[in-house]
Amino acid sequence: MPRDDAPLIGQSLPPLNAREKVSGTALYAADIKLPRMLHAKVLRSTHAHARIRHIDVEEARRAPGVKAVLTGADTPKAWGIIRKDEHVLAVDKVRFIGEEVAAVVATDENAALDALERIRVDYEELPAVFDTRAALTPGAPEIHAGTGNLARDISFDRGDIAAGFAEAAVIHEAVYETPYQYQAAMEPMASVAAVDGSGRLTLWAPVHSVHRTLLRLAEVLDLPTSRIRVVQSVVGGSFGGKLGEDSNLYITARLALACRAPVRLVNTRVEDFLGARPRMPTRIELRMGADRGGLLTAKDAVIYGDNGAYSGLTPEVILVTALRLDNLYRQKNIRTRAKLVYTNKIPSGGFRGFGGPQIAFALDSHMDALAEKLGMDPVELRLRNAVGPNEHTVHDWKISSCELAQCLRVADREIGRKAKKAAQAGASGPLRRGIGIGTSLHVSGARQVADWDGSTVTLKFNPDGRAVVVCGEGDIGQGGATMLQQVAAATLGLPADHVTVSVADSETTPYTWGAVASRLTLIAGNAVMAAARSARRQLLATAAHLLEVKEDDLTIADGSIHVVGVPDMAVSVAKVCYAHQLRPGGEAIFARATYDPPTVVADHKTYLGNVSAACSFAVQAIEVEVDTETGVVRIVDIVAVDDVGRALNPQSAEGQIHGAIAQGAGYALHEQLALENGRILNGNLADYVIPNSLSCPSPRTTIVDGYEPHGPYGAKGASEAPVSATAGALANAVYDAVGVRITSLPITPEKVLTALRAKGGR
Amino acid sequence: MPRDDAPLIGQSLPPLNAREKVSGTALYAADIKLPRMLHAKVLRSTHAHARIRHIDVEEARRAPGVKAVLTGADTPKAWGIIRKDEHVLAVDKVRFIGEEVAAVVATDENAALDALERIRVDYEELPAVFDTRAALTPGAPEIHAGTGNLARDISFDRGDIAAGFAEAAVIHEAVYETPYQYQAAMEPMASVAAVDGSGRLTLWAPVHSVHRTLLRLAEVLDLPTSRIRVVQSVVGGSFGGKLGEDSNLYITARLALACRAPVRLVNTRVEDFLGARPRMPTRIELRMGADRGGLLTAKDAVIYGDNGAYSGLTPEVILVTALRLDNLYRQKNIRTRAKLVYTNKIPSGGFRGFGGPQIAFALDSHMDALAEKLGMDPVELRLRNAVGPNEHTVHDWKISSCELAQCLRVADREIGRKAKKAAQAGASGPLRRGIGIGTSLHVSGARQVADWDGSTVTLKFNPDGRAVVVCGEGDIGQGGATMLQQVAAATLGLPADHVTVSVADSETTPYTWGAVASRLTLIAGNAVMAAARSARRQLLATAAHLLEVKEDDLTIADGSIHVVGVPDMAVSVAKVCYAHQLRPGGEAIFARATYDPPTVVADHKTYLGNVSAACSFAVQAIEVEVDTETGVVRIVDIVAVDDVGRALNPQSAEGQIHGAIAQGAGYALHEQLALENGRILNGNLADYVIPNSLSCPSPRTTIVDGYEPHGPYGAKGASEAPVSATAGALANAVYDAVGVRITSLPITPEKVLTALRAKGGR
Repeated sequence: MPRDDAPLIGQSLPPLNAREKVSGTALYAADIKLPRMLHAKVLRSTHAHARIRHIDVEEARRAPGVKAVLTGADTPKAWGIIRKDEHVLAVDKVRFIGEEVAAVVATDENAALDALERIRVDYEELPAVFDTRAALTPGAPEIHAGTGNLARDISFDRGDIAAGFAEAAVIHEAVYETPYQYQAAMEPMASVAAVDGSGRLTLWAPVHSVHRTLLRLAEVLDLPTSRIRVVQSVVGGSFGGKLGEDSNLYITARLALACRAPVRLVNTRVEDFLGARPRMPTRIELRMGADRGGLLTAKDAVIYGDNGAYSGLTPEVILVTALRLDNLYRQKNIRTRAKLVYTNKIPSGGFRGFGGPQIAFALDSHMDALAEKLGMDPVELRLRNAVGPNEHTVHDWKISSCELAQCLRVADREIGRKAKKAAQAGASGPLRRGIGIGTSLHVSGARQVADWDGSTVTLKFNPDGRAVVVCGEGDIGQGGATMLQQVAAATLGLPADHVTVSVADSETTPYTWGAVASRLTLIAGNAVMAAARSARRQLLATAAHLLEVKEDDLTIADGSIHVVGVPDMAVSVAKVCYAHQLRPGGEAIFARATYDPPTVVADHKTYLGNVSAACSFAVQAIEVEVDTETGVVRIVDIVAVDDVGRALNPQSAEGQIHGAIAQGAGYALHEQLALENGRILNGNLADYVIPNSLSCPSPRTTIVDGYEPHGPYGAKGASEAPVSATAGALANAVYDAVGVRITSLPITPEKVLTALRAKGGR
Repeated sequence: MPRDDAPLIGQSLPPLNAREKVSGTALYAADIKLPRMLHAKVLRSTHAHARIRHIDVEEARRAPGVKAVLTGADTPKAWGIIRKDEHVLAVDKVRFIGEEVAAVVATDENAALDALERIRVDYEELPAVFDTRAALTPGAPEIHAGTGNLARDISFDRGDIAAGFAEAAVIHEAVYETPYQYQAAMEPMASVAAVDGSGRLTLWAPVHSVHRTLLRLAEVLDLPTSRIRVVQSVVGGSFGGKLGEDSNLYITARLALACRAPVRLVNTRVEDFLGARPRMPTRIELRMGADRGGLLTAKDAVIYGDNGAYSGLTPEVILVTALRLDNLYRQKNIRTRAKLVYTNKIPSGGFRGFGGPQIAFALDSHMDALAEKLGMDPVELRLRNAVGPNEHTVHDWKISSCELAQCLRVADREIGRKAKKAAQAGASGPLRRGIGIGTSLHVSGARQVADWDGSTVTLKFNPDGRAVVVCGEGDIGQGGATMLQQVAAATLGLPADHVTVSVADSETTPYTWGAVASRLTLIAGNAVMAAARSARRQLLATAAHLLEVKEDDLTIADGSIHVVGVPDMAVSVAKVCYAHQLRPGGEAIFARATYDPPTVVADHKTYLGNVSAACSFAVQAIEVEVDTETGVVRIVDIVAVDDVGRALNPQSAEGQIHGAIAQGAGYALHEQLALENGRILNGNLADYVIPNSLSCPSPRTTIVDGYEPHGPYGAKGASEAPVSATAGALANAVYDAVGVRITSLPITPEKVLTALRAKGGR
């Protein structure tokens, strides 16, 4: 296994802006103050489905402090990230309770709120539909004309499904349901926009990608991209909630253009529930077969994805649900039908894992059921089917590095499953313990837009011998900037703090896609590594000239360039940079590099094609204690084993794994938006319960020894795979403990008790 | 004469941020607001020269709202741009009234002001000296130990001065005196600094050069440059007042580091008088000879420059006074002795023209006196001596393009000197008219620091086919950014508004020197032109591929790439950019270029060497009316004729000429700091009078047909030459009107009346 020689790699550097965050000095979008800044508020629909007959804004316009009131008449252009089914403010119709209908901008927030109450909207209520299958029934209210309520219809077949089921020794069939899950970032969405004298717009917002945001703003506002600048403010967590689906920033931008003044719009918590585009709810009808040896023979899946009222990124999310996890266990015969359905509910969208957690829950539950039917150990069943390194999968993915089998073995060993099973054998009393396994994979980049998944970065040296990575990838709190700092410093032979990573600013940074699909480490990391290698060559060439030696005799360590084997012969990087630049005709040491991974855009009809250069794998073994009298599931122990290639920054990777598991545990046990006829009932963090340190113990994490050949220093993505593995592990653990299989998330005490009673429980 | 073919060149584009400025929406440093921002105020010395026995800050520290109080004990490091003779806050001694002694930072400005009053400074007064020659007298108080009050001693000889005077048919000798002149920018100096969680400092300030400011801050604060980021805020005029001599920004930075909070420090007007480092006062003892044919035979100059209490940039300023204007008229025999002298007064410093106006006033006065003695027309005398294109001067400068003779002829013709002289011949009454000529030259860049006078710029394309120039040169209100936009767009074949020029931000822009020595047009302009040419080649190559034609058959106009002669064959630049980037392995069109002019650092002992690739020339002919009863000089007509090479943006060049002349007229007739024992008496814009539209009529400007081969599209600097020509022209006009020669600026009514009376006048 190749190993790169760089002392910094594998060291746990602290996140670059950790201090600001913990000391309360980080500047979030809501903290930005500009002279003459105005404040915006949004009027939202009170109906799940209604025609807008008329909006009377005259009184609001005359209200004290009000500078502008906009309605859909001011934002007539239909747009959307994938489907053009949205408007910044509702036009003609509203389609969910909470939809943005009008926006007021005033001298302060209270004036804006007062003005909202003076807007009169004359609605004609329309019949609404809240269930995906009901929405597909003939005669159902049509939410978007001409769609039949179908936002995407995915259909693909691999191999011979009938033959596959014929081969099967056992077949299991079940229906799984997953709820909305809210991203629950500490920072609700917020943005500030300002317009300069020439009408050029600058937006500060906590976005995943300044350049994609720029493209979308240009589309929404009908402006050339160069008339817009997007600067990433510090991101107070996103998890997909700030992928650009929320209308917040488009409203802010539109208002700033209308008023020619800076405008600030900060979502309240309930607005963030409405706008963050929570995880797509699904109904997954799954039938799978396995032969006597445990090999999977067929998979038949019918998936209903709940799009809510508008699409956002969900048409991509459902493709992930439909397809991605088929690359985890070897499959040959597959039939998949996935329908993304409009309902009069909150639009769903991108959330860490991006369609993965839904299907992983179903698959892991199914794997355990098949194992039971076969009388096979569930870990053994997984090992027999587990994809391995350098395999081609059924969807034509090329698995590069893969330590899935190792992860399964380590997880099984670490949780001590066999010993505990033995100890539990004769258990009595109301508290029962069980252990479950969950598994998943995630991409490191996903080629999809315009056949480019590249990252371009520039690296420049200052005359003091320190480097700046000028890069548009940004940091969404996951440590992206710290990773780039580390890769650059390691490659250059500099101390980490001699490398600065610029803020993502669309004006000054090279075009790139930002933090999506866990692409930063592999793709941007490679680009930075290439740029740093180029800069390193320039440093060595200049040093060789200064020291009158050959470049091959030189090495860089701790900010100096040394002649190997001659302790006294060295020159500081600072001196080399100075000499390179400050001479006639000189210029600063500078490098620019692009990395575009060796992937393809999947075929638009067959969905075949390797979209990612690498996959990361996550296995979790979780022990629970189920209280059979209350139905409460308590997590006793979590073992998380991850293949992230080589962990550049173990603490950072472990932090991602911890956070992912907390979200996975919340998804499995607690979280769901409570909606009544489309109205959210628990749009606050008192009633919408996310895990805390009491309900979700700290996982015991192992990052297995892996090495991804496409990755910088062997690394691949670390942040998304683990979020998908938790729910299946917990469902399997509950079954292991008390013998009831809950197929609908979250696994609430009520569901457990009901199932126990149905089973004639204790 | 070569001509480049670019439709945009020679068009008068409006300044890029003109709208913000006139509409009041531009964000100056004083407008920046940051959360938790604190406000600073400075305690200043009340003594011209005193030892600081003790500073008691205890009461101030306990005052309400006060967060920190700093004194020289907190800023012990001696520093200075050239001589290390300063401290951010006074250490041990104060040396002028107004020197920064302590700084308070508090929650608001009033709290800071209140706290200032609670600081007790125990001074031991020392004898002070206010006159340069007195300061050089043995036994004078020594302001900086060991210096003998001499901050720089310049001495050089060319040819044979004795032989030169022996050749002379006429010799003229006079002593000239010039005062402090305050830059009087509309925006007083201001800065905001913030410190992030890792202690990294960001400074927003209206500086000439973000990268030089960074270097200086790093030195002052003892931080690596990479721990500092400097962003240029909108500059509300500088004229040299914001070259980094004022302590304002160093204090702000130090306070922000001390408090770990954002700090804002805005100079009051009187503080700006104290800190802007006004134009160096001089005494110039000048003796020159000319032969019968009018050719100059010898020049003997003794110059005393008043440094004030600290050096700043003045050691460079006095070298310009001593040497630069010798390149304007052919000289062979020169003896120059220039002494820069410490006094207990406000430090002088860099001001537009940078030492030129002082000596140009003396030289032009002298040229007229020599012409009179020779019985020669003063324009004719100048024409006989005027330097011409491709000449080597006495200081080994290589004059490139030069239209000085043309400028003289045009100015003479435009003012109508001969006709008016004839008309005035028999004038009677108290009002007398006269015409004077003034001349000057200025560099386009001046190689001085570390043998690099380069500019590096990057140019990137967005997928919409529009370009961004990422550049650290900045804009100090002179139109630098607009010039770069124009050169880039012209070279690329794009409409001007398809090019954006980034804000100067040390983090994201390439290292460069910024707006000094009128270097931007020639040096940065060339760098942008080279980058644009490289990007253009990339555009053409991609378009050739798309259109399946040869690159040579293509041209770019109006944002599209056309096949020459085939009207329907074209592709938009946007499409080309998209195709270039959004393909496997693609990247955005991008170019980086450095231009370092073909110049040298002048020899440190002889001062020989060509420091600038080009010189610009300015000639002014001014008609005045002198009221012989009051001594008031009224400007009747100003003709300004300039050789700026090819004017890229005529309106912008003319604007610079207008502004320069207003400053020159103020220097000649009105402006001087009134000091009494070192205390400023007129530190406000009511008592310190600058010209307005009534006292300085709008000049009639002509930009002669010129072409500088080193310049982009033939251009060279335009902003500084004209400021130096005005005072001589006015002094000569007064002499022409009433026969008295005022050799001490400003030419006040009192001086004119006194001279008229001494002459036995009316």
